[in-house]
Amino acid sequence: MSHRSKEFAEVLEETKSLFRDVMSVPDNFEIMFMHGGGTGQFAAIPLNLKHTFADYIVTGAWSGKAAQEAEKFIHVKRASIKSDAAYLYYCANETVHGIEFHEPPHSIHGVPLVADISSNFLSRPFDFRHHGVVFGGTQKNLGAAGITIAMVRKDLIGKQLPITPAVFSYKEMQDNNSLYNTPAVYGIYITNLVLKWIRDQGGVEAIYETNLKANMIYNIIDSSNGFYHCAIDKRYRSNMNVCFRIGGESGDDAKEAEFLKGAAERHMISLKGHRINGTDVFSRSVGGIRASLYNAVTLSDTEVLATWMNEFLAKYS
Amino acid sequence: MSHRSKEFAEVLEETKSLFRDVMSVPDNFEIMFMHGGGTGQFAAIPLNLKHTFADYIVTGAWSGKAAQEAEKFIHVKRASIKSDAAYLYYCANETVHGIEFHEPPHSIHGVPLVADISSNFLSRPFDFRHHGVVFGGTQKNLGAAGITIAMVRKDLIGKQLPITPAVFSYKEMQDNNSLYNTPAVYGIYITNLVLKWIRDQGGVEAIYETNLKANMIYNIIDSSNGFYHCAIDKRYRSNMNVCFRIGGESGDDAKEAEFLKGAAERHMISLKGHRINGTDVFSRSVGGIRASLYNAVTLSDTEVLATWMNEFLAKYS
Repeated sequence: MSHRSKEFAEVLEETKSLFRDVMSVPDNFEIMFMHGGGTGQFAAIPLNLKHTFADYIVTGAWSGKAAQEAEKFIHVKRASIKSDAAYLYYCANETVHGIEFHEPPHSIHGVPLVADISSNFLSRPFDFRHHGVVFGGTQKNLGAAGITIAMVRKDLIGKQLPITPAVFSYKEMQDNNSLYNTPAVYGIYITNLVLKWIRDQGGVEAIYETNLKANMIYNIIDSSNGFYHCAIDKRYRSNMNVCFRIGGESGDDAKEAEFLKGAAERHMISLKGHRINGTDVFSRSVGGIRASLYNAVTLSDTEVLATWMNEFLAKYS
Repeated sequence: MSHRSKEFAEVLEETKSLFRDVMSVPDNFEIMFMHGGGTGQFAAIPLNLKHTFADYIVTGAWSGKAAQEAEKFIHVKRASIKSDAAYLYYCANETVHGIEFHEPPHSIHGVPLVADISSNFLSRPFDFRHHGVVFGGTQKNLGAAGITIAMVRKDLIGKQLPITPAVFSYKEMQDNNSLYNTPAVYGIYITNLVLKWIRDQGGVEAIYETNLKANMIYNIIDSSNGFYHCAIDKRYRSNMNVCFRIGGESGDDAKEAEFLKGAAERHMISLKGHRINGTDVFSRSVGGIRASLYNAVTLSDTEVLATWMNEFLAKYS
């Protein structure tokens, strides 16, 4: 099927319109289906929002990578908030570290916020106020990997640097309704189906209620007298990725391995935390266990994990 | 499934190895699964093959777009062949115009060839000699849209400009085995299945034999006394996209509409040629009918088209 066929045009338009409804995207934001993932946007943002510098709030691996990529194109200041910055960048949920902004950071003097919502996309209602660009990959909560949805305030489009690759140009994408080149046609169809599923669940508010399931796990961690340890301040704990260590703050490798083995026997896989090579504060805090509780994980799935955590705790108490 | 899971690592490795076998990719070429489509590579190539200028053979819409994109980064010369160019670029098959290189162009003084094989990917054996970069999207002959496979001679990797976005950097992709960021995991799985299908057909040589099915259509065109008209020199006619007009050289809109209607009744859709806005030689020659005879189109599918063309010709003779 051609991506310029009437059949696909219908899929694309319906998907955009479903997405605008389900995500409550304001009319002054353009919705574009792009290539390159979040990492592509790390370049696209500084390329498109032409300016001399921008502020980055670095809270973990992904915002760190975003800042590093932006430095190829503009001057980057980390964790400063200046009134003359092009934008203030943050990562709404740090997948590797389990850190989530439950409210957007405060910006000043109208500096637009830029949010990477890849790993908490449509897991909760999103407040577009003060935002200039909101983007995310579809691979966590919206379908298969290979599509990046960028929502860009229309008055910010058209300021791209001359060296902006066409597939990263918000202007080209807007002018061509995401069809400047062949988009991931089949992936957009899958996203269409997932959006209908979210709508049928009762929309993003209902999804958010279910996602409070993460508290079931955090409660076990907090009442385990330190047997389970979560390094993240309670105000910033992620509903999507619950990261913790077993057997104390720095983790007991043998106990963690035993826990993972028992989890696999209970059909829970990929619970091993993502280790990062490095010596900074971000790399030290991770590894151990990461329970990713994306939208597709049900309440009863979460109960299976909770039961196993309680059982394992009892064994060592 | 995480793209860093053991399960996906196996899919990726098998796909790479199948691809190397089926495509006969020489060992000194790195195979990378990338984002951004062919259009992404239009930027990636000049960004990675750092140099002051390159030569582009412009034979239609796609090589034209590639040259235009490259001008953002380097100086581009069209259809010249200089010994000090970074590379000589060509599009192996122009989808819109139905123009195919049946042999790669000749380069001089070791200037590496860069080939866009998006629309004749694995439709015929490919001669890697003299090439530096060979790339294509998977959407025509290798699965779903959303993956770009880049084959890059290893000694050319690592020369990227500092402003190269990470997802377009051959160095980053090589260093991270195509996992610098999340690739289109499911799409790679589909490509894996298609590669097995090609292998089981008897490999690319057998596929090529079947693809000579295009001659069935060209023969009808050439023996129609000008009723069907193909503007392309016989030496460069595409086996993938047979482009022609009905009712003479500039086409008869009414007859073409009637032909398309009858084709749809016979379950052949998307036969309408891609019109390009413009006044140059490339935009004048297209429109009309385009029969895309990609690998998935069988000999008997092609016979359905041939039968309808003969029937339609008989009506107006």
